[in-house]
Amino acid sequence: MTRVYLDHNATGPLRPEARAAMIAAMDVVGNPSSVHAEGRAAKALLERARGEIAAAFGADGADVIFTSGATEAAALALAGRGLHGGDIEHDAVAAWIDADLPVGASGAVRVDDPAQSVLQRANSETGIVQDLPQGLAVSDMTQAFGKLPVAFNWSGAQMALVSAHKLGGPKGIGALVMRRGTDLAAQLRGGGQEMGRRAGTENVIGAAGFAAAATAAARDLAAGVWQRVAELRDMMEETLATETKHTIFVGKEVKRLPNTSCFATPGWKGETQVMQMDLAGYAVSAGSACSSGKVRASRVLAAMGHDEATAASAIRVSLGPQTSEQDVLGFAETWLARFRKHRARAA
Amino acid sequence: MTRVYLDHNATGPLRPEARAAMIAAMDVVGNPSSVHAEGRAAKALLERARGEIAAAFGADGADVIFTSGATEAAALALAGRGLHGGDIEHDAVAAWIDADLPVGASGAVRVDDPAQSVLQRANSETGIVQDLPQGLAVSDMTQAFGKLPVAFNWSGAQMALVSAHKLGGPKGIGALVMRRGTDLAAQLRGGGQEMGRRAGTENVIGAAGFAAAATAAARDLAAGVWQRVAELRDMMEETLATETKHTIFVGKEVKRLPNTSCFATPGWKGETQVMQMDLAGYAVSAGSACSSGKVRASRVLAAMGHDEATAASAIRVSLGPQTSEQDVLGFAETWLARFRKHRARAA
Repeated sequence: MTRVYLDHNATGPLRPEARAAMIAAMDVVGNPSSVHAEGRAAKALLERARGEIAAAFGADGADVIFTSGATEAAALALAGRGLHGGDIEHDAVAAWIDADLPVGASGAVRVDDPAQSVLQRANSETGIVQDLPQGLAVSDMTQAFGKLPVAFNWSGAQMALVSAHKLGGPKGIGALVMRRGTDLAAQLRGGGQEMGRRAGTENVIGAAGFAAAATAAARDLAAGVWQRVAELRDMMEETLATETKHTIFVGKEVKRLPNTSCFATPGWKGETQVMQMDLAGYAVSAGSACSSGKVRASRVLAAMGHDEATAASAIRVSLGPQTSEQDVLGFAETWLARFRKHRARAA
Repeated sequence: MTRVYLDHNATGPLRPEARAAMIAAMDVVGNPSSVHAEGRAAKALLERARGEIAAAFGADGADVIFTSGATEAAALALAGRGLHGGDIEHDAVAAWIDADLPVGASGAVRVDDPAQSVLQRANSETGIVQDLPQGLAVSDMTQAFGKLPVAFNWSGAQMALVSAHKLGGPKGIGALVMRRGTDLAAQLRGGGQEMGRRAGTENVIGAAGFAAAATAAARDLAAGVWQRVAELRDMMEETLATETKHTIFVGKEVKRLPNTSCFATPGWKGETQVMQMDLAGYAVSAGSACSSGKVRASRVLAAMGHDEATAASAIRVSLGPQTSEQDVLGFAETWLARFRKHRARAA
């Protein structure tokens, strides 16, 4: 059976450019901390990757600290600081903050004290995009980077979290991007790597893949790839809406990521939908797929005021740059066929 | 110029088996935490890798927690525990311990309270091997894994740190291995990955490479590859010793890693030797090459009672499984030629 992958916000296929860059980097023998020729070659590759990521992220002149992913970047940026945020942040951010900022029905978070607050650029479950206030302490830009025109240097944020595998790079590498001169104590210690902010021999192959993916993602974005994707997403939602009266398309009325559709059909568990669609060849998810196999009602939807029945019935369909019209229409048709059966049983 | 790489304790070339496994893993699309088919395939690959590493490390039944490297594994195992160790541990371990255990002239550390102590299995700079007492809290087995017959389950240690890139895997992945049932609070939070001990989307490609490298390293070890390497190392040391009266071969009288030679030639700076050998085509290092370009007298040699002039004149030559007799004799000849010039200038 041909599979259709519509869970790009969880992770996506490695871009061919990332694959090629990683395979090339496999021939680099040295440790970037070694002073001999092999070490300098590894260091040069790492620094070139850092520069490419900064360029793709609009962060020239900022510090790009490589980490093992956005989760580590979040810990590095947030642990022990007691910053505030809305209860729509990713678990990796939520673990370190007071989730006490008000969240509106359309998902917007009200930030009164940006210097003490964290705010994501885009939500992984709903795709809803936030306007970032100037002077924001930390922004999780993991989902936005590569899908929206984000430029760190213009964002007004002091720090941003990003991840390679959300934009077609490998899993296991990300970065904390900071305005130059920001104080930051290392959490991983025992080595001077990453300007003293993060000890440990660097993931050279991963960095090469991250940089190539970020560059390719920036090129795709500039070429308008996501406009086509947004049209497919909208077409899918319209197709579903023709037959569903009670399905709620979350965030449809506000600015969203171009690839994300989160919709809730009260009375039909999201978990059940995900399994049925999986059996039919479509990979989608219920809530954030980032933690270990857990299935629970979405905290994000609850924060926006949806009741538990609605939150528990939501699924997320997230398209990729290569998603085709056939993929999307096939999904809609299959979902609607299951929906009709569900409705018949429920009647 | 043909380069000869003799700095395998810093890092080494990717094994062909690791390269192939990583390239194969690049086709795995899903997130191991996703419940759909693509997620389950990624999870299966990750768990297979975990099992292979456990098998190669003699750790069947133990918990293998993937980290971004031994540095992160050290932080996870050690931070906040106030364990004790000798001042010969790697910086990534030294950052978290009281380095107050006595170190003998031959490098042996005296451990009185194993349950409150950390002790490396082998030293990265000298190659000196420690006998591990039963009931040891933590052992850094990074340098030993793949080069010595180490079996975690027989080591008597509660936890061990390992790294992929020291045995021919990729940089950026390692593991904390623990007896099953050991309590451990996660440091990276916000996701249930790694049995709740380490949040963050897993480095799937890296894990595949780590497992393939560990398996290949175990095979090499069983095939006696390191006996040949030890003979080459000894041959090199004998060749150097024929002309050097004052050069000290550190740890020659005790059990060492088969690939490591650390020798000090008082009056001739290690840093200078490394640069001269690099220009002549040989990659070696002065002290531990794991931190950012710093050059300072070895803390390890100082702990063994060597004076600063000796410590500052040490270099480390570390062979790999592919190192040839020609490589080693070429190095010895080149080093001796430079040594003669140095001696003539000093005279």
